[in-house]
Amino acid sequence: MEFTAQQIADFIQGKVEGDPNVLVSNFSKIEEGQPGTLSFLSNPKYNQYIYDSNASIILVNNDFEPERSVKATLIRVANAYESLAFLLTVVEQSRPQKTGISPLAYVSKSAQIAENVYIAPFVYVGDNVLIGKNTHIMSGSSLSDNAQLGDNVKLYAGVHVYDDCKIGNNCILHSGAIIGSDGFGFAPSADGSYRKIPQLGNVILEDDVEIGANTAIDRATIGNTIIKKGVKLDNLVQIAHNVEIGENTVMASQTGIAGSTKIGKQCIFGGQTGVAGHLHLAEGTILGAQAGVSASIMEKNQIYQGSPAILAKTFRRSTVVYKNLSELQKTIYELQKKVADLENKLK
Amino acid sequence: MEFTAQQIADFIQGKVEGDPNVLVSNFSKIEEGQPGTLSFLSNPKYNQYIYDSNASIILVNNDFEPERSVKATLIRVANAYESLAFLLTVVEQSRPQKTGISPLAYVSKSAQIAENVYIAPFVYVGDNVLIGKNTHIMSGSSLSDNAQLGDNVKLYAGVHVYDDCKIGNNCILHSGAIIGSDGFGFAPSADGSYRKIPQLGNVILEDDVEIGANTAIDRATIGNTIIKKGVKLDNLVQIAHNVEIGENTVMASQTGIAGSTKIGKQCIFGGQTGVAGHLHLAEGTILGAQAGVSASIMEKNQIYQGSPAILAKTFRRSTVVYKNLSELQKTIYELQKKVADLENKLK
Amino acid sequence: MEFTAQQIADFIQGKVEGDPNVLVSNFSKIEEGQPGTLSFLSNPKYNQYIYDSNASIILVNNDFEPERSVKATLIRVANAYESLAFLLTVVEQSRPQKTGISPLAYVSKSAQIAENVYIAPFVYVGDNVLIGKNTHIMSGSSLSDNAQLGDNVKLYAGVHVYDDCKIGNNCILHSGAIIGSDGFGFAPSADGSYRKIPQLGNVILEDDVEIGANTAIDRATIGNTIIKKGVKLDNLVQIAHNVEIGENTVMASQTGIAGSTKIGKQCIFGGQTGVAGHLHLAEGTILGAQAGVSASIMEKNQIYQGSPAILAKTFRRSTVVYKNLSELQKTIYELQKKVADLENKLK
Repeated sequence: MEFTAQQIADFIQGKVEGDPNVLVSNFSKIEEGQPGTLSFLSNPKYNQYIYDSNASIILVNNDFEPERSVKATLIRVANAYESLAFLLTVVEQSRPQKTGISPLAYVSKSAQIAENVYIAPFVYVGDNVLIGKNTHIMSGSSLSDNAQLGDNVKLYAGVHVYDDCKIGNNCILHSGAIIGSDGFGFAPSADGSYRKIPQLGNVILEDDVEIGANTAIDRATIGNTIIKKGVKLDNLVQIAHNVEIGENTVMASQTGIAGSTKIGKQCIFGGQTGVAGHLHLAEGTILGAQAGVSASIMEKNQIYQGSPAILAKTFRRSTVVYKNLSELQKTIYELQKKVADLENKLK
Repeated sequence: MEFTAQQIADFIQGKVEGDPNVLVSNFSKIEEGQPGTLSFLSNPKYNQYIYDSNASIILVNNDFEPERSVKATLIRVANAYESLAFLLTVVEQSRPQKTGISPLAYVSKSAQIAENVYIAPFVYVGDNVLIGKNTHIMSGSSLSDNAQLGDNVKLYAGVHVYDDCKIGNNCILHSGAIIGSDGFGFAPSADGSYRKIPQLGNVILEDDVEIGANTAIDRATIGNTIIKKGVKLDNLVQIAHNVEIGENTVMASQTGIAGSTKIGKQCIFGGQTGVAGHLHLAEGTILGAQAGVSASIMEKNQIYQGSPAILAKTFRRSTVVYKNLSELQKTIYELQKKVADLENKLK
Repeated sequence: MEFTAQQIADFIQGKVEGDPNVLVSNFSKIEEGQPGTLSFLSNPKYNQYIYDSNASIILVNNDFEPERSVKATLIRVANAYESLAFLLTVVEQSRPQKTGISPLAYVSKSAQIAENVYIAPFVYVGDNVLIGKNTHIMSGSSLSDNAQLGDNVKLYAGVHVYDDCKIGNNCILHSGAIIGSDGFGFAPSADGSYRKIPQLGNVILEDDVEIGANTAIDRATIGNTIIKKGVKLDNLVQIAHNVEIGENTVMASQTGIAGSTKIGKQCIFGGQTGVAGHLHLAEGTILGAQAGVSASIMEKNQIYQGSPAILAKTFRRSTVVYKNLSELQKTIYELQKKVADLENKLK
């Protein structure tokens, strides 16, 4: 399907600057823009690309001021990134959806499956599983006994949900996500070996949660590991047993949260961050990439960095000095010598 | 099923303090304890919760001394955590077990399968595979040609065991665990490209090993990657080719061990730790979370931290100073000036 | 099959030193060498093992000079490691290969499959998928609609390729590799929740790429995430949306590259390294293990280490001082006192 700049501008309440009749049928990144595509400019880091971009239409923020002429037709909007997101969503939702239960799936007789569900070949649905309406489960995924999925859930291929785990409405789980594996709980024995502590709790994902590819969330020893409404976890994240993650907290890839830690709402964690067990992190905590948190953070909305994590502004100042540590040490040793000389002179 | 406090106390050789007839049918965490549940107190960090807990029964250590009155019935035992583990194990073992080979599984005619085995739908069992008795394999898992599983092994859904790998008795492998993927071995060519070194060895897991969700263990180039008896690996751990991990060593999530490294027995590694290749780590080595080990550790039972890892007590002292590096630098520059002034005066 | 030292030497253009008629039928590591096996010595770290090795034949570099007598027959070659690799490759390629499409696989009628392909049980092949000749797909893998695989591709068990992703010739993807999961893109709303940005781009793997077990590569928001020819990614690596990785770059396990970052060709990244989003890293960049790169690196062929990453030589000098930070601080405070005393004397 093709649309004119004017049609799109009307749709997203924007203002056309240039040819309103130019046609596009696809999206492109601004630095790779081709004729017939719509691009966008939101991050000023990419401003340089707008002048030579071959995209036919470029969405820009209302306050964008070109430094020289732009070949493309511009559509000015309040927030170019949000308008782009809106257009992407429209396109995505117009795609055809699969439905029905494949005869190549295994579905227990005791499972209860709502209307308009898609279950692909080689999906395993265990005893007493509940699946809400409009939910899609791709090939090779498994729902063990008593698992529950809400409405409008999407499980991509190869997602495994263990016994008794509950997934709310509108959740998206990417391939390789594991929900409900055993917590890492062992008791040391006198002979040096470890005895397994059975993990009899479960995992609860509330509504609107997205879980990245190959992310693992362990079931609680007792009670629940809880991922609250609106939480977004990136790929390869580890959530240990009995952890609780507050509403709308987002964690970038390869982050790990150790057992029983409680993370507040609206937190933002960079990639490869780690939080030790049995801690509390206040709402709004921001962790820089690779931060390692070893103590609770009680004050809200603070930014931490480093391992062990300290306030980001302190960390940044210390890293500057760190580079010069060797020179600094030399300076100290010189001072020592000079001071000794002075002391000798004044004896 | 419901049990009285007295029945449970008799079972775990404990002493009831409070109503011996109170009934419980489930477990709870002390801070979330509800009537009808049994909870426990082991970590003193949680002492505060015992006074208001609504759990009907709470297991405590013999030496626990309440500071004020407790609503729940207490059962005093030598080790509350171990008694809890024992009760959890009893409950877990009383659960019904699936058996039989699903007609929806693929099992090679040359595979040898012992008695009382469960093979779920969509499991792939290759040529010459051996599976010991009482072993359970959940849906979507695969055992490639010549793989061997011992007795009482549990493979959760979506575990993949490559050709020729051997898994001992009583092992538990969680979903997404990959055993026997190729080691990362390449030889550089003159043109900048890399040629693959075939990885013809295998992986051996000895008895009583537990492997977490989405953990990957690479096969040896030649010979074996060996995970010894009683080792416990958490989720998302990486074990490279030709690594050897000693008995009863435990590694927390997201740890990575590079090729050909040998780790001693009874080591404990925190989360997100890394060990470089071709090293030896002595038995009893403890690594703090996020430690990065770049040299062999010959002395036993030492605690290391930091990246590059140094002795933990040195690390802790240095981190304290690190926070003040900027101020310290300022102090040094001031001293420089003062010393220069003094030198001028004494010229 | 058995071969004599002379036969092997002729095959790899080496020179026999010792009994040319000794027979071997397998490979071994030098420190574990058994009679009837061929071993090799390449890394001088392992020189000590050659004298007592029970291997019947040991490949060594032409310039190897034994310090005392060696029991094994030696074969001298220009590069022992390359000759070993060559022999391993010959053995691997002589193994029987499976072919044919299993009746237990699901293959869409619209998929196009070239000759001599193997598709295992429980593999899902979606609509309009293209599969090139000699390609092997192990059990439980899935190719979503419009995915493309080239010739001579190998997908181990449990690999999932999302819609529209393209995989070139001669690629190897290990179990649990996820290609094309959604990029981690969300727009914050006024109420604190996040709205998902649909990810409509794809992933392209060019020829000769190898992807490790449980590695995840996200699809682009718009356009392509591109892994160029000859790239080798180890296990549990994270590649975010719109990333571009240059030819023949290799990344060790658990590395993570954040969104839209461009990595040059011929780079070498150690394990557990991280690179922030929207950066450029010049060709030939080397990152030490656990390095965290937070700024673009423009100069080619530089070695970086630490978090935040700095030039390796600076890092190494600073780490030496880091160990002594506490003593250094003490020295500074002593100097302060001494200088104050001197100042008092000169008042």
